[in-house]
Amino acid sequence: MSIVVIGGGVIGLSVAWQSQRAGLSVTVIDPQPASKASHVSAGMLPPGNEQLYGQPDLLKLCMTSRARIPSFFEELSEFGPTGFRRDGVLDAAFDEEALASLGRQQEWQEPQGVRTERLTAEECAKLQPAFAPALGGLFAPDDGAVDPRVLNATLLKAVEDLGGTVVRQRAVRVENHAVTLDNGDTVPYDRLVLSAGTWTHYIEGLPEGTIPEIRPVKGQILRLRSDTPLLNVTARALSKGKSLYLVPRLDGELVVGATYEERGYDTEVTAGGTNELLNRAAAVLPEVGTLRLAEMSVGLRPASPDDLPLIGPTNVPDVFLSTGHFRMGVQLAPVNADGMVAYLTDGTPSDAVAPFTPLRHN
Amino acid sequence: MSIVVIGGGVIGLSVAWQSQRAGLSVTVIDPQPASKASHVSAGMLPPGNEQLYGQPDLLKLCMTSRARIPSFFEELSEFGPTGFRRDGVLDAAFDEEALASLGRQQEWQEPQGVRTERLTAEECAKLQPAFAPALGGLFAPDDGAVDPRVLNATLLKAVEDLGGTVVRQRAVRVENHAVTLDNGDTVPYDRLVLSAGTWTHYIEGLPEGTIPEIRPVKGQILRLRSDTPLLNVTARALSKGKSLYLVPRLDGELVVGATYEERGYDTEVTAGGTNELLNRAAAVLPEVGTLRLAEMSVGLRPASPDDLPLIGPTNVPDVFLSTGHFRMGVQLAPVNADGMVAYLTDGTPSDAVAPFTPLRHN
Repeated sequence: MSIVVIGGGVIGLSVAWQSQRAGLSVTVIDPQPASKASHVSAGMLPPGNEQLYGQPDLLKLCMTSRARIPSFFEELSEFGPTGFRRDGVLDAAFDEEALASLGRQQEWQEPQGVRTERLTAEECAKLQPAFAPALGGLFAPDDGAVDPRVLNATLLKAVEDLGGTVVRQRAVRVENHAVTLDNGDTVPYDRLVLSAGTWTHYIEGLPEGTIPEIRPVKGQILRLRSDTPLLNVTARALSKGKSLYLVPRLDGELVVGATYEERGYDTEVTAGGTNELLNRAAAVLPEVGTLRLAEMSVGLRPASPDDLPLIGPTNVPDVFLSTGHFRMGVQLAPVNADGMVAYLTDGTPSDAVAPFTPLRHN
Repeated sequence: MSIVVIGGGVIGLSVAWQSQRAGLSVTVIDPQPASKASHVSAGMLPPGNEQLYGQPDLLKLCMTSRARIPSFFEELSEFGPTGFRRDGVLDAAFDEEALASLGRQQEWQEPQGVRTERLTAEECAKLQPAFAPALGGLFAPDDGAVDPRVLNATLLKAVEDLGGTVVRQRAVRVENHAVTLDNGDTVPYDRLVLSAGTWTHYIEGLPEGTIPEIRPVKGQILRLRSDTPLLNVTARALSKGKSLYLVPRLDGELVVGATYEERGYDTEVTAGGTNELLNRAAAVLPEVGTLRLAEMSVGLRPASPDDLPLIGPTNVPDVFLSTGHFRMGVQLAPVNADGMVAYLTDGTPSDAVAPFTPLRHN
């Protein structure tokens, strides 16, 4: 059976690769694979956050993906590096309100089987000496991060190594079980997966309402650099009701993110976005000013009408959605890929994936 | 007579061009003309600043250059655009100390013939509505700014249009009235001008001490952009004992500068430098956050041992210096070029230029 995936971000590529592992024949269509939100993403793989409490379906999806992450990266490592590190995530509280939130977080994480340790101010300072004094922390030793740029490159290589085709053209239209490209060529399919993030609903030819509008949520993000890493482990700095994530790489890169802005398809790096991130970073990392400002970039997170992922069939036979993962594309890629493989092979998706069927919007 | 100028920044190029106008034959040597400090500079042409008070020689040099600026740009406009605007410079005070400094500034500017007007808080707001409330201002209607990138391109064109040669190689060595290049070629000269900024003293072959060490003073500078200009006129925002310059262009560019850092030849854009400029800009321009962060760059200001320009002969016959203009290269280019032409043609430089002879260091 031939599968066509429109969209070569981390979601589309991981669906493609896992589909190949299940014996399906795959073509990915993307004018520039791994160039959008997946390229900009920090790649944090946290044990969830407070917002998941109160969203049991999304929490279950996250936890199922979290459980799958190690084997997913193990399978992928056959094709190249993944940039996966599983040396812990530190949530550090810099005010009383944040400190209180750590207790609540631990409370709902425990029944999910997430191992966490409460850290004193001193323990935080020992683990992350570059931090300004924190009031306390919550350390999740089994979590970590991935470098999405390394991950995407290896996913792309895996797809090609396994005989998949990557068509570097824009998909314009879907009709009669074929995709029409920008250059006029057509690519026939048995089953089609739409994973084009916030551009998904611009694909023409399907009945109105098949693809819900996928809203772009702008995120500005910084990449700083030092010769040696400033931070030892991935961290979230919590203060003033906000969370700043700080994702260090072993090569000295430090990713600082991110803004959340509802500004349509605007992808400009602004003075204000950069200033906000630098001020928040400086408040928790006194030495951050000495780091090189290596890159400022913008990603457009794909948000569905209810801000929840769309994973599964549409009303159009053989047309599936796999998008709308909002701020969690990288961490949900494993569970999403497994769910999509189940749908594409006429199997039954896991209970974790089932609630995210696109048919919920009908 | 053949003149060779080593260094194609604003100083070297303006000396070359004015020498051609005086009938001299000119070759400029620079691996990449107009790519260093001159490229990064904001191009403000202010009526001096408070630091000049107490430095009468430098004040006189500045004022002589200021008087020459209009005719200099008029002459250059024959060859192309100059990016010169003479619609005023506003010094705006954002604290009491700054407000007091405006009075002192006006006092010493008046006898220099600098026309200034004291502005009330309301008048500042009217002239520059994008500003946060200022306590008052000092407006110099006859001053302004130039776009150094436009200026340099036209200077380069002028040199070539007038038959000058621009050799895009690095000058390595001077001996026997010839310059040896990186590629081994030699360029003979009758008289030589060294204008390579903070790299000038790396030119080999001259007796020790001929070229004083020219110290690099790092400046980080931002270029923001909006569709229409946020500011009406060039401005300096004075607060907390510091001056932030804000140079708007008609096309919507806004240059914000600058840091002063003694860090050798380091040209890294840092998180701290960017954050400092953005915080200072945000304090005086509430809307600045909405502007695009178009460019962050670093220039190395060339500072001589006494931080004053070096303009004139050395102890080596036919070898001249024209460098060390520190933070004032663009605004001193006219007076510097005139002075150098006097020296190169065996004339007498003006009283304004004479004190800056390099022989003062002997």
